[in-house]
Amino acid sequence: MTTLQPTPDLLAGLPDGIAVTDPDILRSYRRDHSRFTDSGSPLAVLAPRGTAEVAQCLRACHAARIPVVTRGAGSGLSGGANAVDGAVVLSTHRMNAVLHIDPAERLAVVQPGVLTGDLRAAVAEHGLFYPPDPGSVDFCSIGGNVATNAGGMCCVKYGVTGDFVAALEVVLADGRVLRTGTRTVKGVAGYDLTRLLVGSEGTLGVITEVTVRLRPAPRPPQTLVATFGTPAAASAAVTGIDAAAPGCSAVEILDRTTLRAVDALTHMGLADDAAMLLVQADSADADAVLGAVAEICAAAGGEVARSADAAESALLMAARRMALPALERLGDHLLDDVCVPRGRIVDLVLAVERIAADSGLTIGVFGHAGDGNLHPTIVFDGADPASAAAARRAFDAITAAALELGGTITGEHGVGRLKAGWLTRELDPVNLAVQRALRGVFDPDGILNPGVVL
Amino acid sequence: MTTLQPTPDLLAGLPDGIAVTDPDILRSYRRDHSRFTDSGSPLAVLAPRGTAEVAQCLRACHAARIPVVTRGAGSGLSGGANAVDGAVVLSTHRMNAVLHIDPAERLAVVQPGVLTGDLRAAVAEHGLFYPPDPGSVDFCSIGGNVATNAGGMCCVKYGVTGDFVAALEVVLADGRVLRTGTRTVKGVAGYDLTRLLVGSEGTLGVITEVTVRLRPAPRPPQTLVATFGTPAAASAAVTGIDAAAPGCSAVEILDRTTLRAVDALTHMGLADDAAMLLVQADSADADAVLGAVAEICAAAGGEVARSADAAESALLMAARRMALPALERLGDHLLDDVCVPRGRIVDLVLAVERIAADSGLTIGVFGHAGDGNLHPTIVFDGADPASAAAARRAFDAITAAALELGGTITGEHGVGRLKAGWLTRELDPVNLAVQRALRGVFDPDGILNPGVVL
Repeated sequence: MTTLQPTPDLLAGLPDGIAVTDPDILRSYRRDHSRFTDSGSPLAVLAPRGTAEVAQCLRACHAARIPVVTRGAGSGLSGGANAVDGAVVLSTHRMNAVLHIDPAERLAVVQPGVLTGDLRAAVAEHGLFYPPDPGSVDFCSIGGNVATNAGGMCCVKYGVTGDFVAALEVVLADGRVLRTGTRTVKGVAGYDLTRLLVGSEGTLGVITEVTVRLRPAPRPPQTLVATFGTPAAASAAVTGIDAAAPGCSAVEILDRTTLRAVDALTHMGLADDAAMLLVQADSADADAVLGAVAEICAAAGGEVARSADAAESALLMAARRMALPALERLGDHLLDDVCVPRGRIVDLVLAVERIAADSGLTIGVFGHAGDGNLHPTIVFDGADPASAAAARRAFDAITAAALELGGTITGEHGVGRLKAGWLTRELDPVNLAVQRALRGVFDPDGILNPGVVL
Repeated sequence: MTTLQPTPDLLAGLPDGIAVTDPDILRSYRRDHSRFTDSGSPLAVLAPRGTAEVAQCLRACHAARIPVVTRGAGSGLSGGANAVDGAVVLSTHRMNAVLHIDPAERLAVVQPGVLTGDLRAAVAEHGLFYPPDPGSVDFCSIGGNVATNAGGMCCVKYGVTGDFVAALEVVLADGRVLRTGTRTVKGVAGYDLTRLLVGSEGTLGVITEVTVRLRPAPRPPQTLVATFGTPAAASAAVTGIDAAAPGCSAVEILDRTTLRAVDALTHMGLADDAAMLLVQADSADADAVLGAVAEICAAAGGEVARSADAAESALLMAARRMALPALERLGDHLLDDVCVPRGRIVDLVLAVERIAADSGLTIGVFGHAGDGNLHPTIVFDGADPASAAAARRAFDAITAAALELGGTITGEHGVGRLKAGWLTRELDPVNLAVQRALRGVFDPDGILNPGVVL
């Protein structure tokens, strides 16, 4: 481990009161929530209070060629906010103001450190809706969501974070402030820098302000739950829902392993089911949509329960919310995030069953079936190097299976450090060369999140 | 005018049968549909038959440092496909195959020269829907739509072209073939090159294949027409519709000048109205949505007519379809394309009325009110230099007014040559510097569409 200390020059270039060098605090800023990712010792944590201070930090770090790792809430699952030795961690937690809500234009302007759940609550007071709802919605930040192009259960109807970003303010590696996008609904003036920055995982700049698009508040969702005897039956139902009952606001799946884990925790009576679908609709014709979904599920052999009541809906969705906590109870866990064409979900679930059998590990699969975006979750014993190695092999096998099925290595968690090696498998050499050249435009000295993505 | 001839070296590097040098044909490839834009004499038109031939063309032109202007159907309105002296015009018209339609994944893979209307018809046979519907839908190409990120009436509900592009194949300036995007619904593996290429107007590469996302076929729309005594009343209705009746599939406006021109052509009895809104809904609750729209329009002082019948709906929409032809009948015309925040539509309409009065020119305004995306259309006498100069001044005044209202210089037509100067007004120096640097990554020698956008 390198034991760099912040140089007097660096500290001299920083605003007062934003640098933390207490080793205990630094330790807590080493890592995000990912597993199996490298991290190093930062030489300082910087907590600027606004764009001007972020620019000062970047100018100082740029001058000293000190790496900058931007950190939102640290809830990432791919190591995108992990520190490297000798870097500063630039935390956005003090920049947590909702600056402006414009109900007429349905826009909100927020600082990056605002928690996504807080943004959703703030706009709901105006009868408005910010759809993106990653599982971490209550403890992730909007800046991190933009940096990873985060998703959630809403995406099947509403789209991902990037679909709701109208404009950005970003501090570049050299301290210049870049403003992108427009407040208008449409706009094609120049290259779409906003979309290029969305999902760039802290490698192209530091997001300091986000203008998000909002929607009118939706109706309370109606909910349907269907259980199936085989993964193929559930998958056939997903295909049917997609074709004949479009417009659902959530189409989630839990596999046999996940259901058993949830049942062990909750005693909901799910231990004998091979798969469960949870479907919601919040449109004007939700009743008819879920009626069609019920028929599709029944025709595929599913047992169906429905509710239009909010409290009952929440109860039905409880199994989905318990999926990760239930799997976590079984041991250490490694959460994957792959996305396959919707018609290949069953193939992915079956591939994961084979990989689980081969590895001797428990692997639960749950996720956003309507998008083909699943989260195989490998349970292992972190204290046992053989188990950890087997988990890593299983993880690689799952990611490879997704690619073989015509899918992608990451649907919504990002590449980070966890899958930087895999990116070279998904993208061809020309694409990788262009990606690297673009990064070089924004950060010729390579100080922004080195080792992440590329 | 330069009178360059294709060098033997260049022709030697090209596939057989794709180069045209007949001066009469070359003349017809000088310009797109724009007015007030420069154009030059191409030294050849190249019409490759596939990706490999496009790559051969680019390698040859790159080696000889010959500019390449890519042309789809030539229907652009900002000069993005205008030739420059000594360039080759690379026409995609021979690459017009719908390669694959995948109903299960709701994707279509097409070559760039496919006409947008043909794509819509081809997928409709599978019960699917490709929403983007620029006014030129029957004679523009999907490659051009991607290159300009084209819009249309559907955008208020469905979004713009870029929202439907899942993946691209693009030949880079040096002939390398770049593949971007995924066939999955979600994917965050690396920077979003697809979105960077969408709207890049032929300056970053030549699009050779487009994978578009499709939707299930919508219900036949119901239609409402409302006429108003003042632009402010119509604008208030647009704001009300946006707030209280979301989900409309079209919210179009025609101003007094446009209505008079339409009436002179059709005798529909519109000459006394100050503004007209045409609203459609194709959702399950279309009847309720248009009921709410009717109440909003009536409360704003509008006179309302409605129909759920397809033939009658088409009749009601006839005025909208006649807007441009009717204005064209009045003389030469210059079509602008600006987008303002939805709440500022009335300010833009009033600004255009003032500019028309000041200039002594007829200027009609129509367009996509629900998006704030309007097309002020200046009628002038092209044979009279003073009239043409006044038209150009009015055009600049309108574009300036849009910027002052917090809008953008182009909502859906692109920057092209027409507004390259204006881009430096909309974007700040840091943004422009980044845009230029990105272009340099893709095209260091500046052979792709020189003079367009930047």
